[in-house]
Amino acid sequence: MRRKQFLVIGLGRFGTSVSRELYKHGHDVVAIDSDEERVEDADGFTSRAIIADTTHEKTLRSLEPESYDAVIVAIGDHIQESILTTLLLKELGVQKLWVKARNQQHHRVLEKIGADRIIHPELDMGIRIAHSLDSDKVIDYVEISVDHSIVELVATKKIAGKTLAKLNIRKRYKCNVLGIKSGENLTITPMPDDMLTEGDVMIVLGGNRDLKKLEAELL
Amino acid sequence: MRRKQFLVIGLGRFGTSVSRELYKHGHDVVAIDSDEERVEDADGFTSRAIIADTTHEKTLRSLEPESYDAVIVAIGDHIQESILTTLLLKELGVQKLWVKARNQQHHRVLEKIGADRIIHPELDMGIRIAHSLDSDKVIDYVEISVDHSIVELVATKKIAGKTLAKLNIRKRYKCNVLGIKSGENLTITPMPDDMLTEGDVMIVLGGNRDLKKLEAELL
Amino acid sequence: MRRKQFLVIGLGRFGTSVSRELYKHGHDVVAIDSDEERVEDADGFTSRAIIADTTHEKTLRSLEPESYDAVIVAIGDHIQESILTTLLLKELGVQKLWVKARNQQHHRVLEKIGADRIIHPELDMGIRIAHSLDSDKVIDYVEISVDHSIVELVATKKIAGKTLAKLNIRKRYKCNVLGIKSGENLTITPMPDDMLTEGDVMIVLGGNRDLKKLEAELL
Amino acid sequence: MRRKQFLVIGLGRFGTSVSRELYKHGHDVVAIDSDEERVEDADGFTSRAIIADTTHEKTLRSLEPESYDAVIVAIGDHIQESILTTLLLKELGVQKLWVKARNQQHHRVLEKIGADRIIHPELDMGIRIAHSLDSDKVIDYVEISVDHSIVELVATKKIAGKTLAKLNIRKRYKCNVLGIKSGENLTITPMPDDMLTEGDVMIVLGGNRDLKKLEAELL
Amino acid sequence: MRRKQFLVIGLGRFGTSVSRELYKHGHDVVAIDSDEERVEDADGFTSRAIIADTTHEKTLRSLEPESYDAVIVAIGDHIQESILTTLLLKELGVQKLWVKARNQQHHRVLEKIGADRIIHPELDMGIRIAHSLDSDKVIDYVEISVDHSIVELVATKKIAGKTLAKLNIRKRYKCNVLGIKSGENLTITPMPDDMLTEGDVMIVLGGNRDLKKLEAELL
Amino acid sequence: MRRKQFLVIGLGRFGTSVSRELYKHGHDVVAIDSDEERVEDADGFTSRAIIADTTHEKTLRSLEPESYDAVIVAIGDHIQESILTTLLLKELGVQKLWVKARNQQHHRVLEKIGADRIIHPELDMGIRIAHSLDSDKVIDYVEISVDHSIVELVATKKIAGKTLAKLNIRKRYKCNVLGIKSGENLTITPMPDDMLTEGDVMIVLGGNRDLKKLEAELL
Amino acid sequence: MRRKQFLVIGLGRFGTSVSRELYKHGHDVVAIDSDEERVEDADGFTSRAIIADTTHEKTLRSLEPESYDAVIVAIGDHIQESILTTLLLKELGVQKLWVKARNQQHHRVLEKIGADRIIHPELDMGIRIAHSLDSDKVIDYVEISVDHSIVELVATKKIAGKTLAKLNIRKRYKCNVLGIKSGENLTITPMPDDMLTEGDVMIVLGGNRDLKKLEAELL
Amino acid sequence: MRRKQFLVIGLGRFGTSVSRELYKHGHDVVAIDSDEERVEDADGFTSRAIIADTTHEKTLRSLEPESYDAVIVAIGDHIQESILTTLLLKELGVQKLWVKARNQQHHRVLEKIGADRIIHPELDMGIRIAHSLDSDKVIDYVEISVDHSIVELVATKKIAGKTLAKLNIRKRYKCNVLGIKSGENLTITPMPDDMLTEGDVMIVLGGNRDLKKLEAELL
Repeated sequence: MRRKQFLVIGLGRFGTSVSRELYKHGHDVVAIDSDEERVEDADGFTSRAIIADTTHEKTLRSLEPESYDAVIVAIGDHIQESILTTLLLKELGVQKLWVKARNQQHHRVLEKIGADRIIHPELDMGIRIAHSLDSDKVIDYVEISVDHSIVELVATKKIAGKTLAKLNIRKRYKCNVLGIKSGENLTITPMPDDMLTEGDVMIVLGGNRDLKKLEAELL
Repeated sequence: MRRKQFLVIGLGRFGTSVSRELYKHGHDVVAIDSDEERVEDADGFTSRAIIADTTHEKTLRSLEPESYDAVIVAIGDHIQESILTTLLLKELGVQKLWVKARNQQHHRVLEKIGADRIIHPELDMGIRIAHSLDSDKVIDYVEISVDHSIVELVATKKIAGKTLAKLNIRKRYKCNVLGIKSGENLTITPMPDDMLTEGDVMIVLGGNRDLKKLEAELL
Repeated sequence: MRRKQFLVIGLGRFGTSVSRELYKHGHDVVAIDSDEERVEDADGFTSRAIIADTTHEKTLRSLEPESYDAVIVAIGDHIQESILTTLLLKELGVQKLWVKARNQQHHRVLEKIGADRIIHPELDMGIRIAHSLDSDKVIDYVEISVDHSIVELVATKKIAGKTLAKLNIRKRYKCNVLGIKSGENLTITPMPDDMLTEGDVMIVLGGNRDLKKLEAELL
Repeated sequence: MRRKQFLVIGLGRFGTSVSRELYKHGHDVVAIDSDEERVEDADGFTSRAIIADTTHEKTLRSLEPESYDAVIVAIGDHIQESILTTLLLKELGVQKLWVKARNQQHHRVLEKIGADRIIHPELDMGIRIAHSLDSDKVIDYVEISVDHSIVELVATKKIAGKTLAKLNIRKRYKCNVLGIKSGENLTITPMPDDMLTEGDVMIVLGGNRDLKKLEAELL
Repeated sequence: MRRKQFLVIGLGRFGTSVSRELYKHGHDVVAIDSDEERVEDADGFTSRAIIADTTHEKTLRSLEPESYDAVIVAIGDHIQESILTTLLLKELGVQKLWVKARNQQHHRVLEKIGADRIIHPELDMGIRIAHSLDSDKVIDYVEISVDHSIVELVATKKIAGKTLAKLNIRKRYKCNVLGIKSGENLTITPMPDDMLTEGDVMIVLGGNRDLKKLEAELL
Repeated sequence: MRRKQFLVIGLGRFGTSVSRELYKHGHDVVAIDSDEERVEDADGFTSRAIIADTTHEKTLRSLEPESYDAVIVAIGDHIQESILTTLLLKELGVQKLWVKARNQQHHRVLEKIGADRIIHPELDMGIRIAHSLDSDKVIDYVEISVDHSIVELVATKKIAGKTLAKLNIRKRYKCNVLGIKSGENLTITPMPDDMLTEGDVMIVLGGNRDLKKLEAELL
Repeated sequence: MRRKQFLVIGLGRFGTSVSRELYKHGHDVVAIDSDEERVEDADGFTSRAIIADTTHEKTLRSLEPESYDAVIVAIGDHIQESILTTLLLKELGVQKLWVKARNQQHHRVLEKIGADRIIHPELDMGIRIAHSLDSDKVIDYVEISVDHSIVELVATKKIAGKTLAKLNIRKRYKCNVLGIKSGENLTITPMPDDMLTEGDVMIVLGGNRDLKKLEAELL
Repeated sequence: MRRKQFLVIGLGRFGTSVSRELYKHGHDVVAIDSDEERVEDADGFTSRAIIADTTHEKTLRSLEPESYDAVIVAIGDHIQESILTTLLLKELGVQKLWVKARNQQHHRVLEKIGADRIIHPELDMGIRIAHSLDSDKVIDYVEISVDHSIVELVATKKIAGKTLAKLNIRKRYKCNVLGIKSGENLTITPMPDDMLTEGDVMIVLGGNRDLKKLEAELL
């Protein structure tokens, strides 16, 4: 795979996390923050880290943001800085511009000035966590479409010792069991005669209503 | 499903998102914040919202936190408040206590004083976003275990017009195609002779290396 | 003339001046500011003055801004507030939305989110003042198009006692003498045989180069 | 024309605009501000920019302000600094001293201590903007004397296709049509048989009442 | 003596001291300060104390400052407030307006806007104290004119036991001994044969050089 | 006269005034302040000016304050600093220690820790000013003892043209006329047949009641 | 024992601890603090708690501090407040006045203005803790005089199984074993044939050198 | 005795006092604070003083805290810093870790994360001071166990002239007289026929109730 160039603006928790992960994957990551200490700390997980004010047009231009594969604006707390930086980046011709938003109004302004993707870490994680809290049997939750999700469900006593064939999940609930975690092990192509033990975790894909029904009746 | 009782402490973006989602699911949500305005704004998505300082022992006790199904401490920015509140809640006998952390040190203290689950929205979202940036074909990414993930991959010209049977993904890459999104539609039990159109999104589960290989060779 | 409804947001110097002038012309002026004292002081030159935070969506909607003939956003100092308020007003369907900008970046964001006219008092006045400073004989200056202006020129000793006919300004400089101020009096249809006295002020319309030439040769 | 020397004190929006315009006209502009960053940014539009505190007598004297053709005090926000600087400049013998004022009280103090001209950008622009808002047909407005103005009026359907001769504006309203803008073109010596098209802009000079009448009856 | 009306603006140490002394003499003293606590504390030494902002024109007018025998502006620390208040008071027609100044620039502005007397407590006291420090024998010092002063001198051993006649001060130094303090007693018409004791204090009026000579030779 | 050594701590208005006057008299003045700018400005009126924190024992000792003829603590605004500095100076053996106080409580603490003289510029000047305000004829006022003062009185029309002999002030009021100012001239040994002109200023020493009586009856 | 009256000024940690302990012993405790919340929290361990500023003379007098058995000034952090409050209390005639000091300079000022006892919690505890750290066998330490202390020493293996008589501590080291703690039990009149077990704690009184020698040789 | 190595974190009053005492005893003391001035002032009573932020993991590790005999965390005011530093030190393997706490909640968190001893200077000193205030005869007080103390009692007139034998304290009150202070002298092995003088101080060990009884009946 080609080594890519990323420009990450803002080294808060989100920007740091993005930078660290991209750098771990072997990409070139240039990070910018106005805070000296943060820039120094970025030494271990960026190709280069720069102290700069990205609302200053001349400064931003000199960084040639348009030459990067993607630019991530991770300035979430200062809405004004985030908006002005996004505006300048679009005007400088950045093609792939992803921006973290603080709230819905911020989101709508970013949309208007051309951000390509808008990210809400706190809001999204809040939704995922709420699903886990919703049911003790749901360990994690991912939304696939408006009405389909993948959930991780804990096998209860009630179904312990039964095979997938016996449970007949696909027919009764129109859901697919994608995998089964048993302690440290993960079986990703579960067979009909695989037997469930109490505490096993089934990864199931299905419609939201079907998943609810499955959880209510079966577990 | 039984209507549950949740206590959410802190009405920042994360706390608000958790509260809003749980309330939408039909649960009782009591929210606490020290900021009057935030409490007023919580009217539409909580059963009750209270202005209180949760580091004040007497106040916290009077809320009877141990009577809730779960308590979520969503005070991320003030590490000290978060720690003291968590300590008091555990001492008051809260069984299921989930806490948002600001950084790794905060995480470790929370662990020591008994938090049951520790959440890092910015860090987690950073990792997911990095995976999407890693490859243009990866739209979203969910980690299933240390070495398995579910990714959303865009069908390129190269495979347009081919059937799943022809691509033979399961055999060649030991990956499962869990579903196919075609515009607004989602097929969750894709058949061998389903044909891919350019722009379709395949939801694929597999080992991380296998997924990388699939992406590199096939797309 | 129909009595119009104006909504002025921000009671700084510019907002106050707009409100005062519109109210003097007999229009209905509703003014909003978040500062209590300013709202109290607006008593004499508004129909109604309201304390409100216009970045708060619910608050803004309750004011029904779309029912006004025009809305003026005179929040110049707080770029973020200005942007969010402008966004909300456009989303609520305001047709004629004029906004004061602080600088060029602010201007461009306002443009993107739909402001109908963008105003720069300090910048515009700076240009006018520079023209007066440019020449001692230029008292005031108004730009009519990119290369035409109206200027007020002081009659020097050199032309004192001469008639307009003698000066032959229209022919020699392709400029029109629109009026002559003599002390408190203003003649708006000057006649060819009107004679100039030292200190009289000629209001002249012409091309910028022609005006410069006129000033250099004649005065 | 002689190259002049200007001293501009204060590099806010107004001071910057004055400096930039004068420099563009080919004059020598020396600018002073106490803020380092502003002084650095002034590089492109001043002959020299200096960091200094102009309320400090010794500092101010060393700049020899009396040797300039004019001094502009563009410190609007800090009334005290503006007053003390103006006082010192007058005591040092500055002949042409123009000062920006923040409000009426500030104005009166400046008058007492000898400022030669006092400027109110926000207030003046507020008045101009109010005139445009007053009537949809008025695009811009300039006050010539207490009771005469120049206004830009849009030609409506009602008068489209008519010649100036037919409209007989000079007789009926004692107003002069100074020019006609038709898209990008400007005719500054309009002829009696020039015909108006809808959307054309007439630049008209007249008494305020007459102009109102013209606008009401004709457009 | 007629009971007079005084308006004291500013209840700092100087304003408090003026108010207290005037009130003790039986006059009506109305005091104004923007600080609630200070106004409350003024209960015992003013006829009436009011919380008000005296830079607010309407407020100041409602106090009818022109009806007082004199107005004292004792706002020393805030130069801007002091200047604006002084301006308004003069415009409202106050006849006798005494103002405390913070420094020389402040002084000159006050002069220009019409203050009738300008007071510098710290500066004046500094000068008096310096005179006492200058010589151990000088206890207090008052300037009478540019080159004459009244000083209090301690009688040393050298002149103890001598009469005023013997010392012949008037002739030798052209100075007048105005009085002699002996412990608690003060003789204000000292006789030629009054004898001095060590430690007595002579109050002497004379030319500055003569006084210096007297002190050097005699004491 | 011997050149003396003074140490002045604090370069506010009072400290500056004392330093300037002592330096003008030819003494050595060392001044200390913690503010760099003030120390730089003290160049012209001190022998040496030092940036230092005088509540720091080691620093203060290194300045050898006990070697000066007198030390003046002119730190009035920061009571705590003033107290701690005074304490240290007394402990280091300073003999003549004069301290400026902010209020009565400050005064009493200074007394307890050994200050030799305590100075209240604002309070003292307040009293003097009050006396001038008390009567239009009193121009200045100096307290000589608890019940005797020197006042400057303006000669009114009533006594114009009369000689001192005729007025018989010494007999009728037991007051001494010490001098007469007539415009720029000062007569310090007025003769019985000196005649007063309207506007002349008499410098009179007497008992407070007698002076009041004199003013009421004679002027 | 007679129920006493105490006035505690300042409800920080030290003031709270003193109040709580005195109140537990059955005394009347009135506490004062300027912070409302602290005063409310004092409900459970004071007879009465009052919000007041004790540097305000009138306020302090109204509390009649001289009527209490003792007054404790526990304002440690604000040296100025502590000094002014102490001064006023002494002037009001308080007989037994104990004051907490922040540092040595604060101590000396308090001494000069008459504090009866001056307390340094942090400094004293620092010394005690240092003694425990000095030797692993010293658990606690109390200074009895300049050269005598009481220490708690842990019995090591070396002396386990020996009787006090055998150890002969009084003779060899001129120290007294005052008591022996064995787990929860405390023997306060240890007998010569009491045998020590490893881990027992001896409470020993002696000269500092003798104690050091004992610790070094015996343990 | 072996020279020990101590690391003291935080140079406030408590940390300074611990450092100074340990250094006086001849140990190596390394002190850390984030404040430059404090570190400079520590020169005289530490082996080495370092400016560092101890919540920064890398920094703390580089100091090798695990190599010291004991580490004292004397950061009392900043609970969060204190907690994070304590956590890191325990993770780095510090064996003997003593920490100063600000309040009970802070105490409990420190306990959970592994602090070996937790210190409350203000609280402990408050208790000791309360005991002295409790009775005029109690000069100092040390708690030995839950129900035993050592107190210093002043001999009153009532027992003056009596011998210890006569008073029979051991029998009547089950208390031991450990020593007698007479002015500067201290007798640590008092004999039965030692006679008490008024003002002597007896150091007595006993049960709390017995001591109360002794004080009430005997003194």
